[in-house]
Amino acid sequence: MLFGSIEAGGTKFVCAVGNAQCEVVDRIQFPTTTPTETLQRAVAYFKQFEEVVALSVASFGPIEIRPSAARYGYITETPKVGWSNIDFLGFLKQNFEFPIYWTTDVNGSAYGEYWFAQHTGHSVDSLVYFTIGTGVGAGMISAGHFLGSQGHPEVGHVRLKRHPDDLAFDGICPYHRDCLEGLVAGPTFEVRTGHKGMDVPMSDHVWDIMAYYVAQAALQSTLFLRPTRIVFGGGVVSEPFLVKVRVAFHQLMNDYIDVGALEDYIVMPSITGNGSATVGNFALAARQLD
Amino acid sequence: MLFGSIEAGGTKFVCAVGNAQCEVVDRIQFPTTTPTETLQRAVAYFKQFEEVVALSVASFGPIEIRPSAARYGYITETPKVGWSNIDFLGFLKQNFEFPIYWTTDVNGSAYGEYWFAQHTGHSVDSLVYFTIGTGVGAGMISAGHFLGSQGHPEVGHVRLKRHPDDLAFDGICPYHRDCLEGLVAGPTFEVRTGHKGMDVPMSDHVWDIMAYYVAQAALQSTLFLRPTRIVFGGGVVSEPFLVKVRVAFHQLMNDYIDVGALEDYIVMPSITGNGSATVGNFALAARQLD
Repeated sequence: MLFGSIEAGGTKFVCAVGNAQCEVVDRIQFPTTTPTETLQRAVAYFKQFEEVVALSVASFGPIEIRPSAARYGYITETPKVGWSNIDFLGFLKQNFEFPIYWTTDVNGSAYGEYWFAQHTGHSVDSLVYFTIGTGVGAGMISAGHFLGSQGHPEVGHVRLKRHPDDLAFDGICPYHRDCLEGLVAGPTFEVRTGHKGMDVPMSDHVWDIMAYYVAQAALQSTLFLRPTRIVFGGGVVSEPFLVKVRVAFHQLMNDYIDVGALEDYIVMPSITGNGSATVGNFALAARQLD
Repeated sequence: MLFGSIEAGGTKFVCAVGNAQCEVVDRIQFPTTTPTETLQRAVAYFKQFEEVVALSVASFGPIEIRPSAARYGYITETPKVGWSNIDFLGFLKQNFEFPIYWTTDVNGSAYGEYWFAQHTGHSVDSLVYFTIGTGVGAGMISAGHFLGSQGHPEVGHVRLKRHPDDLAFDGICPYHRDCLEGLVAGPTFEVRTGHKGMDVPMSDHVWDIMAYYVAQAALQSTLFLRPTRIVFGGGVVSEPFLVKVRVAFHQLMNDYIDVGALEDYIVMPSITGNGSATVGNFALAARQLD
């Protein structure tokens, strides 16, 4: 018995099959080209494995996640050329009889980290997974349920208290300028410093400014959800950066709520190699059978 | 068959019994004095009604809501003199055999509005209830579940983008200065204007500043939860104020997410006479029997 995973990104697709322990048995990746070509390639991949009994898709968005909606299973209006209004789930259902779960990329990653924590002896009943890369998004699980009723969360666009040393920076979000994404997404480094983030040393004050904003994202998550754990992934995030985030979080919280040891609360992904969404998909596919 | 409701506030207790339609059959209120005197008075009230089969308490806080915690059912560390570390639920359980539900005041109100919407023909599966009065808090329901895993939400203490005309105001929260509560709770009016809020006309620019912050609270709620409805109650809130909040919300959202008609999304309580928590308690008590 195998479970299928599609991690659908704007740049590449990662398809994999895994066993009941959510271990990868086989895996490929290919570039995201046209919807027809890309989705057919995914279908052809899973057709090789007769043992697949369920599949889960963690997709870039925005996507329609309300099962009652007419466009349930679609990628809706996306800046990714050619991919707006694409019936992703419908295409898969035309090709497979088994159950298929449909969610966001960050929900997939959140579920992977949640599943992994539970299966490695941690008592985690709620978890927030942020990705900070080209954009900023989060998947959130509370008491086993994904948050998001009328659609999936879009926490990348919350507003924040501005850092006093950053007031001259307008932010880069085309919709909101200085929302969370507009202040901390990867491309902000070039605008603020003229260098890519990977080339800006952790001693640069811009990382303190970044940490102040990311700590506010963690603080908002805490005050809304009181989660067991907040995971930060994505290209901008590193352990030395999270050290700064924890310091800023501690100052912002000012001992108002005890969340336990911050090294266990604000963390990098436990699943290595960008594998959180794949593990999450395996677990979500398996859950479809229950 | 009757259901009991205790709305436990720092100033007064409201006790009521209601029928299966969540209608009030009898109701009293009395001042919050010492824990022993106040809780005994509540117990004596419900002892009059033999038909009571379940009770729900919506309490001021902070309270311990994790059933697995040693102090489950306690009011924990509160500024209210004499009420810290009080085993509220335990006291009731010593006196009654029937099931007793225990939650926060704002969760009780949120559940009342949620129940009422569903029972008046509205398709509401998630709802946020903010109170803006002496303090600021919110109760949140997503897919029928209260948010809050390691404790109840504390969204009154999120940080916000400051209004450009309000930068000289430090905020009044003793923990965080300019968090949401520190910027919009009722007592901020005296500090900003020298007058009580009720004496500041809606034409005063301070109300635009207030609306900008409250709109950000609605925006954060939307981006985290994508709820069906956001309700604002409490002494600071009025329909003319919410008109300003909707305008500010629309500008902040900038058409990024369609939440439908704002008059149906950002609203005053549907249950009149500050009755939301009482109705919520009746419904939560009834749910205990399922």
